[in-house]
Amino acid sequence: MNRNRIGIFDSGLGGLTVLSEVARLLSAERTIYLGDTARVPYGIKSSDTVIRYALEDAAFLQSHKVKLIVIACNTASANAEEVLKKVLDVPVVGVIEPGARAAVAATRTGRIGIIGTTATIRSGAYTRAITEVNPEAKTFTSACPLFVPLAEEGWSTGEITEKIAEKYLESLQEADIDTLVLGCTHYPLLKETIASVMGPDVTLIDSATATANEVARVLKEEGLENIPDNSNDTPDTNDAASSNGDNGDTHEFHVTDSPESFVTVGARFLSGRGVHLHRASLAHLESKA
Amino acid sequence: MNRNRIGIFDSGLGGLTVLSEVARLLSAERTIYLGDTARVPYGIKSSDTVIRYALEDAAFLQSHKVKLIVIACNTASANAEEVLKKVLDVPVVGVIEPGARAAVAATRTGRIGIIGTTATIRSGAYTRAITEVNPEAKTFTSACPLFVPLAEEGWSTGEITEKIAEKYLESLQEADIDTLVLGCTHYPLLKETIASVMGPDVTLIDSATATANEVARVLKEEGLENIPDNSNDTPDTNDAASSNGDNGDTHEFHVTDSPESFVTVGARFLSGRGVHLHRASLAHLESKA
Repeated sequence: MNRNRIGIFDSGLGGLTVLSEVARLLSAERTIYLGDTARVPYGIKSSDTVIRYALEDAAFLQSHKVKLIVIACNTASANAEEVLKKVLDVPVVGVIEPGARAAVAATRTGRIGIIGTTATIRSGAYTRAITEVNPEAKTFTSACPLFVPLAEEGWSTGEITEKIAEKYLESLQEADIDTLVLGCTHYPLLKETIASVMGPDVTLIDSATATANEVARVLKEEGLENIPDNSNDTPDTNDAASSNGDNGDTHEFHVTDSPESFVTVGARFLSGRGVHLHRASLAHLESKA
Repeated sequence: MNRNRIGIFDSGLGGLTVLSEVARLLSAERTIYLGDTARVPYGIKSSDTVIRYALEDAAFLQSHKVKLIVIACNTASANAEEVLKKVLDVPVVGVIEPGARAAVAATRTGRIGIIGTTATIRSGAYTRAITEVNPEAKTFTSACPLFVPLAEEGWSTGEITEKIAEKYLESLQEADIDTLVLGCTHYPLLKETIASVMGPDVTLIDSATATANEVARVLKEEGLENIPDNSNDTPDTNDAASSNGDNGDTHEFHVTDSPESFVTVGARFLSGRGVHLHRASLAHLESKA
């Protein structure tokens, strides 16, 4: 048993979808979330830069004594998961492998499409992860750089978003896939449009649920689960979290840009998902820029 | 006379349009360009963060002994020009005031539209600068967050870009403006589409030329001009730039993310503008993240 928090980071607020699934599945766990909103987006940047940012994000979470780190960002998972697993002394869970396994489980024809940021698609990480689980699988990829700004603009449906989706997804329609991995935590916001363009025969895979399941599995395997009992609601002043200056909140939020706008947009993002986001702190990373 | 370089910075490569105008107008001058590509875009971030980034960008240029700094980024000019002018010991030229003066000179009806990033529009800097020149002018603004990703995706024309432009510009059409400030250095890439949506009666103002004129005026006023003579082509090894490790190139480029992709895209950006971009160096900023 370990009462420390689960650390979760993302370039911005997309990772909140992963957080809400972790919170739903593991209600006895406390979390700390870092959104690197001062440097968002990661998906248009080089692999070297994404690795550097991911190391700084993880170092911030480690300074808060987390027991496990979730890379709740496809771009960071695709480019930096291997490095993070090598250098960190806590378990690391990314979103790529859980998403890949969910896609392999869902496909009937073995033809799997993957959409993501430029940096995620360029890395080839999903193709590697999918063919590792099933070497027979055929993968087809398309980078969709405008999907993140579209989701952030709030244009999740409508004619413009449909036309952009048609353009990005055309090659995947032609490839006759039956499963499509939403390889970016922002894309579930465009799910309705993507589904209508791809048609009812294509299963959409959002790795948030699969990632939360993987977090549960690793916690159990490593004996790091928190035990859901009453002392959890009224934490002992001697436990690790309290000595960390924790105010007793189950979920703690930190961002590198303005906390105010993160709370406003993040609360919209989490609405109806059972996680209460009412306050975030400004985080100062140990940057080696 | 001063043979040091002119320093120019932007969040990415949009500022290259300003650089090319400076180079065209001031052929005796040498420049050093910094693109903060590891943290681009600035336009979606808070004023505090933009100010911090602008201070770090300027410090990098000052470490290269520049004689004047051009903020070739509307977001940074709108949020940080005042602070930079206070703390720096070299003249600072932003893009907002030159653009505002050009707009006031162009309008006949006094009804001026301004488009830009969220951070530029939120700052109110153009409205302040325009009404300072002409208190009678009426300004109308629209933030266009998707224009930068559209330009970077290379979709400068076409149905999708037209529909997005129609949506963003609708309120400005209704406001019956006769002049429109392209308040972001990326927007000239979308000029054709913006012009076709606004119609032939609306004059588009791109502040790059006006900014270059302002740089020329300030250099002259402060006695900082370089004298165009032969020694300029074969610089003395004792001059400041040479002792700085300068290789004799007229224009020097530095970026915070991968130099390779910057050179590829930047060369396309500068094509036909008379500035040769064949090499960029990785810059390490003194970050206080």
